[in-house]
Amino acid sequence: MSEPVPPAHRWGSLQKTANLQLGPNGRLRHFLTLEGLPRTILEQILDTAQSLVGVTDRTVKKLPLLRGKTIVNLFFEPSTRTRTTFELAAKRLSADVLTMNISASATKKGETLLDTLRNLEAMHVDMFVVRHADSGAAHFIARHAAPHISVLNAGDGRHAHPTQAMLDMFTIRHHKGEFHRLRVAIVGDILHSRVARSQIHALNILGTGEVRVIAPKTLLPSCPESLGVQVYHNIDEGLRDVDVVIMLRLQRERMGSALLPSGHEYFQLYGLTEDRLSLAQPDVMVMHPGPINRGVEMDSQVADGPHSVILQQVSFGIAVRMAVMSLAMRSSEAIARDLPA
Amino acid sequence: MSEPVPPAHRWGSLQKTANLQLGPNGRLRHFLTLEGLPRTILEQILDTAQSLVGVTDRTVKKLPLLRGKTIVNLFFEPSTRTRTTFELAAKRLSADVLTMNISASATKKGETLLDTLRNLEAMHVDMFVVRHADSGAAHFIARHAAPHISVLNAGDGRHAHPTQAMLDMFTIRHHKGEFHRLRVAIVGDILHSRVARSQIHALNILGTGEVRVIAPKTLLPSCPESLGVQVYHNIDEGLRDVDVVIMLRLQRERMGSALLPSGHEYFQLYGLTEDRLSLAQPDVMVMHPGPINRGVEMDSQVADGPHSVILQQVSFGIAVRMAVMSLAMRSSEAIARDLPA
Amino acid sequence: MSEPVPPAHRWGSLQKTANLQLGPNGRLRHFLTLEGLPRTILEQILDTAQSLVGVTDRTVKKLPLLRGKTIVNLFFEPSTRTRTTFELAAKRLSADVLTMNISASATKKGETLLDTLRNLEAMHVDMFVVRHADSGAAHFIARHAAPHISVLNAGDGRHAHPTQAMLDMFTIRHHKGEFHRLRVAIVGDILHSRVARSQIHALNILGTGEVRVIAPKTLLPSCPESLGVQVYHNIDEGLRDVDVVIMLRLQRERMGSALLPSGHEYFQLYGLTEDRLSLAQPDVMVMHPGPINRGVEMDSQVADGPHSVILQQVSFGIAVRMAVMSLAMRSSEAIARDLPA
Repeated sequence: MSEPVPPAHRWGSLQKTANLQLGPNGRLRHFLTLEGLPRTILEQILDTAQSLVGVTDRTVKKLPLLRGKTIVNLFFEPSTRTRTTFELAAKRLSADVLTMNISASATKKGETLLDTLRNLEAMHVDMFVVRHADSGAAHFIARHAAPHISVLNAGDGRHAHPTQAMLDMFTIRHHKGEFHRLRVAIVGDILHSRVARSQIHALNILGTGEVRVIAPKTLLPSCPESLGVQVYHNIDEGLRDVDVVIMLRLQRERMGSALLPSGHEYFQLYGLTEDRLSLAQPDVMVMHPGPINRGVEMDSQVADGPHSVILQQVSFGIAVRMAVMSLAMRSSEAIARDLPA
Repeated sequence: MSEPVPPAHRWGSLQKTANLQLGPNGRLRHFLTLEGLPRTILEQILDTAQSLVGVTDRTVKKLPLLRGKTIVNLFFEPSTRTRTTFELAAKRLSADVLTMNISASATKKGETLLDTLRNLEAMHVDMFVVRHADSGAAHFIARHAAPHISVLNAGDGRHAHPTQAMLDMFTIRHHKGEFHRLRVAIVGDILHSRVARSQIHALNILGTGEVRVIAPKTLLPSCPESLGVQVYHNIDEGLRDVDVVIMLRLQRERMGSALLPSGHEYFQLYGLTEDRLSLAQPDVMVMHPGPINRGVEMDSQVADGPHSVILQQVSFGIAVRMAVMSLAMRSSEAIARDLPA
Repeated sequence: MSEPVPPAHRWGSLQKTANLQLGPNGRLRHFLTLEGLPRTILEQILDTAQSLVGVTDRTVKKLPLLRGKTIVNLFFEPSTRTRTTFELAAKRLSADVLTMNISASATKKGETLLDTLRNLEAMHVDMFVVRHADSGAAHFIARHAAPHISVLNAGDGRHAHPTQAMLDMFTIRHHKGEFHRLRVAIVGDILHSRVARSQIHALNILGTGEVRVIAPKTLLPSCPESLGVQVYHNIDEGLRDVDVVIMLRLQRERMGSALLPSGHEYFQLYGLTEDRLSLAQPDVMVMHPGPINRGVEMDSQVADGPHSVILQQVSFGIAVRMAVMSLAMRSSEAIARDLPA
């Protein structure tokens, strides 16, 4: 507890995190990664989100489920968009929300990360939503959090972005009903994408018929097949007969680097057009985590076309985050009740 | 929908915005400009604000009118003061408020403005409060917003600042009762002032007896009479017998430029002093949108003197913004109910 | 009212502030400093906090005491940690909270501090929580605030930090019951510490048996005995038989200056270790206002050891701030009721 914020390799092991995520009752306590979670937990999240979708359509979009709870957004990496979705989800559950941009405050004064956590815990907060540029940061925080605290991973390095993956699963289930007959293709920079890693885990846990990844070799991890996917380097081959296409966001700062051609060249090779989309099933769904680089990952006709469910993903994202928050809070409340006072 | 944030000349026409502002039922749906609005709408805003003034004096300053609604402050231009008044108004109506500083977030990642809007709409927000350095930005957003969204203009370029003008009208009506016998003088940089443009529209719509503008030629638009005002270049002549003096804020960054002398020189020519004020009616009201440059637009004896209603303007501003928010929300709710689900 | 933000020496006298702090009914109206307050007020704060401690342990950590009230954090000096504790306290009392970073907004536009206050008052806010780098800033604001406004000092220059001192008193009373038999030592940079000044006042008002300060001469004011303390330059002598040790935070920016050796050297001379702590009473309590510089003020064995109550201080801090907020609000409401409408 005496060192400053540990460097990336010091966050510690990401193994056996399923146990860390589930409470003694087998219920979801933290939500850090999909890897290792049982299918029942994923289905519980999807079912809970389903019951909450109606709330965001109502005139009064508010439920008292988390009234009197305090949720702290611990954003070590800025992300207005992701912060907004978690903040909206929390407010619609009637929670109080504090947003802390950690780089700009406590650590400046030489406070260690763990001291910051201990202090927030002492203020009786109930949940941390963590965003960090380092893989493993959310696990580190969950491993050291007090028993009554839940930790949600809102994206850590290249590792995981589990709420994004679950809103994608929700959107697929909403349109396709079940997973075991589906062919799903993920297109783009698999290597650097925490979203892709979480999607692949989720799709496999939910028993998806076939999961494909479509990317140049430079944007794939060394043994992609070990993830449980079919690998395609040619997008026309990869899209053939798929039911769902998930486009990944390309980081502009990587374009034009050694790994990646310019945005224009990338679009020639891997961009989604109406022509390419016609190779897939007639009722194919097109997804993207946003924000879209139009003319890079896909052209606007596809982004705004009849197969796109991109804005639905955003809508469902609020309900899915509300679901994860209320499930995790219920679980940590149960844990807190069993503890000696 | 495929281009980045459009430049100023691309925001599109500002004509025929009255139709854009009013819903099919003739009720206020967006609040973008006063130009073209019927007098009945302005009076409805003033009457609604009158019924809300009492709320801000109560011990519990909260009404449940917008409970469960989400209002997003879209501030493309920073303004703590204006943001604060809208945020307070929203919270006193029990709404949830999200503040987004757009320049610092989404557009950095190359997301287009319309994609940002579509995303926020997909999160089921109910109202945008827009502040932008470009004239026409709020209209652009209103023209492209989903049917269930209301857009309020919190100041766009040199074009309009309608809630500021309406709080000024409220303050005048509070003290003077009616408009048709009044002489009102607006003093200062008419050319660059969105506040002045909105005030002139409001005063004329409400049937003010005489609207004067007092300014050097360099701070007037080319055909000021076409706005429906009397033009004075000499402040002593312009102030004679007026019932209301509205001082405009001088932008410090413009002082000492080719258009404008130094603050001190400006005060000699156009600054409001007790001597000059004695030329007006004995019960003249002095107004200013704030923050005052003391010793530039007016001296402190006037700003803090018995004719000043400047702080009342601020108080009434909360009630007027609450009124506009609740009227626009009621109207868009009615629209939403008539839409197919 | 015509000048810009006054320099430090212009904030005016800090004398006779007890009268300023207490309303005509003798109840707490502002909370600026402990100097001159009667013991009954301090005990009322501690008793009220005691009744609120339970709230922060409940599942629903919310009371409706300040519902419909607006609290404005006026932070002229950034402090995420202090702002967070006041914001949490306010939200748990159901108040609406606005945070304004003054340096970055109104004063940039040339608005005077008093104009900013007048404007916020006109918006019918109820309480200012003030943090400022200049001693006397909170008094200045309280002296000029409207009768219905309460001002809480969240730290002004080297002058006072009264809520921090009261949470320290709460923690001591919680563990030791009463003050008159206690020996309390305050260790560190007494000269620059607003926390130390407020602690010394509080300890003396509450009748503490013996108050010691332990510091090098360079970090003591010129006549420390006049504060009502025993002075020790040697920590081993100063710690002998004490019941409570309060470590002060060392400002890193002062380390290595003419006044202060490096952090390492300071630790050799004044750092708290288990060895040194063994000179105190067996049940000695170790306190620190946080954030700790581990290895400078104390080592981690002490900070995390069995005598440390540092995290309890943080927990109690929320209840103490809730207590001060609700007492001050109750008092200013009573004042407001007696005023002519």
